[in-house]
Amino acid sequence: MILLALAGLTYAQSAADEVRAMLKNSEAAWNRGDMAAFASDYEDAPTTTFVGREVTRGGVDAILARYQRSYPNADARGVLTFSEIEVRSLGPDYALALGRFALKRTAAGGGDTSGRFTLVLRRTAKGWKIIHDHSS
Amino acid sequence: MILLALAGLTYAQSAADEVRAMLKNSEAAWNRGDMAAFASDYEDAPTTTFVGREVTRGGVDAILARYQRSYPNADARGVLTFSEIEVRSLGPDYALALGRFALKRTAAGGGDTSGRFTLVLRRTAKGWKIIHDHSS
Repeated sequence: MILLALAGLTYAQSAADEVRAMLKNSEAAWNRGDMAAFASDYEDAPTTTFVGREVTRGGVDAILARYQRSYPNADARGVLTFSEIEVRSLGPDYALALGRFALKRTAAGGGDTSGRFTLVLRRTAKGWKIIHDHSS
Repeated sequence: MILLALAGLTYAQSAADEVRAMLKNSEAAWNRGDMAAFASDYEDAPTTTFVGREVTRGGVDAILARYQRSYPNADARGVLTFSEIEVRSLGPDYALALGRFALKRTAAGGGDTSGRFTLVLRRTAKGWKIIHDHSS
């Protein structure tokens, strides 16, 4: 029983580490302007949802188009930092990640902005993918 | 295999139905001013999180206190309606629910307001409980 509990704990820790690593890569992709890499962290499926002011649905292309509309150039993208990240396992194949995002931007880019995000992720053959994002 | 797949489908449908029924009860509790019943849909655990402008943590008492601060009387609570509800299973013991909330309120209550919510729920011995809420 103890061994099983320890195995479960290790499993949950590794899921959390994997999701944290994904977010670190995601932040780096944004900051080098590689929006295709940034969008590839979302599951490429019609069920994927992104809740901002409205609900965006669809795969990587829909998510990418949404980001390109909202952040059309380097000034608007600014420099992204994630902080206060928490990851919780939801069984073996799903995880919940919350945190804070901040964009450091010039006045031309719209000025600094920040908010909070909730991500629901699924373990897929291609690694952890975001199946739902609520950012505000 | 077909029988197993069908059993899985029924299981997911019943989870979605149970979560929808919970939200219906939750809406009714709010609208009769029973905030203790409304707050009891959250898991009574220190890990429960509510993301609004800030992050509230804790069990039912912390959630209830937050609601009582933000909605101190019947005018401020107004009449709550949930709409555009979608429920997705996240394995057998977790679910994701999204939707829109609207409060119909008098000017004295702060006027009408609305927004979107993301709920992550866990199947417990006491039924489905909200373990994370992001509302904006």
